[in-house]
Amino acid sequence: MPGAMPGAFYSFVGGNRGPWRIIEVRAVAGRSIEPAPRLEIVNENLHSLPAGALWLWRGVTSHQRYTHRTEQTALAAVQESPGRPEATCAALIPITKSAAWWALTQDERRAVFEDRSAHIATGLRYLPAIARRLHHCRDLGEPFDFLTWFEYAPHNAAAFDDLVGVLRETEEWNYVEREVDIRLVRDPAHPAP
Amino acid sequence: MPGAMPGAFYSFVGGNRGPWRIIEVRAVAGRSIEPAPRLEIVNENLHSLPAGALWLWRGVTSHQRYTHRTEQTALAAVQESPGRPEATCAALIPITKSAAWWALTQDERRAVFEDRSAHIATGLRYLPAIARRLHHCRDLGEPFDFLTWFEYAPHNAAAFDDLVGVLRETEEWNYVEREVDIRLVRDPAHPAP
Repeated sequence: MPGAMPGAFYSFVGGNRGPWRIIEVRAVAGRSIEPAPRLEIVNENLHSLPAGALWLWRGVTSHQRYTHRTEQTALAAVQESPGRPEATCAALIPITKSAAWWALTQDERRAVFEDRSAHIATGLRYLPAIARRLHHCRDLGEPFDFLTWFEYAPHNAAAFDDLVGVLRETEEWNYVEREVDIRLVRDPAHPAP
Repeated sequence: MPGAMPGAFYSFVGGNRGPWRIIEVRAVAGRSIEPAPRLEIVNENLHSLPAGALWLWRGVTSHQRYTHRTEQTALAAVQESPGRPEATCAALIPITKSAAWWALTQDERRAVFEDRSAHIATGLRYLPAIARRLHHCRDLGEPFDFLTWFEYAPHNAAAFDDLVGVLRETEEWNYVEREVDIRLVRDPAHPAP
């Protein structure tokens, strides 16, 4: 039952620590971020920047906002969770949507998101190769509205580029006012637990 | 554009301070709360219980989750905000919904919420008499999922009882596992600003 449990907090800390080496940072829309060599993901709601860290973003997993039952059934049949040993590549994509997006009503947002942009249907085509976890941040007063974490094996890196490329051409992306694409590789000295 | 701005945090503090006297507390579902003589509402995200206070709940206003455009247009034409001088009666109703609710998909929740329970249509019948502000708490890790604040003039108290009575008979309320109905009156020494 995804979403049935209260949300889990995750803190993303950029600095000199953590199993993920940041290999590329690209501002897709709006301004970029302060470069950091490594990322640590902590499964709790950190209230202050750890010593030596450069940035800290928090998000919470939550119930799904747009998915219908037929879509959820299709997703649940094939989706994978982060943490697979072979998934040594990752992307962290913080996104902020515009005031115009948030002023839309639920039916209007769903129409843009899926009826006209096929966000769910597109994502489904890349499962189970790409594992994904969405974190909501807007209601926490964070700088980004969403943090999405993706993990995949090196031979699926081209598929991942294809996925984000398709999404960025959609009507939904007209409402993205800030997006940073952060690519990472797992340090072999810190394999998946 | 309701919801277009980032959410505003509100902290509800039960204790010996504040302009609202708590005159009745009733556990509608699940356990009640610790009784407190007064309520203070602070328009910020308090991080710790103020000295002498008994409880502190936080919530954030946010974009609407179920409202369609035609409904939003109808609501916007008649709804009022809290703070009217004649609205000296209030209710604070904290609610937690069940895991079964949060496991529903968006289409299923909308069907229960409006198609079968007429939550929006029912509320609309009591506007502009009843002013309402909804605060989301679930993703903040708070004890309740929602805090709803209502204000009305004394001569509309029976209408308010009628409104909550109708909602509690709906299918949606099968998913409410905890609800506390807190009634308040404004201290004449602290009129609306």
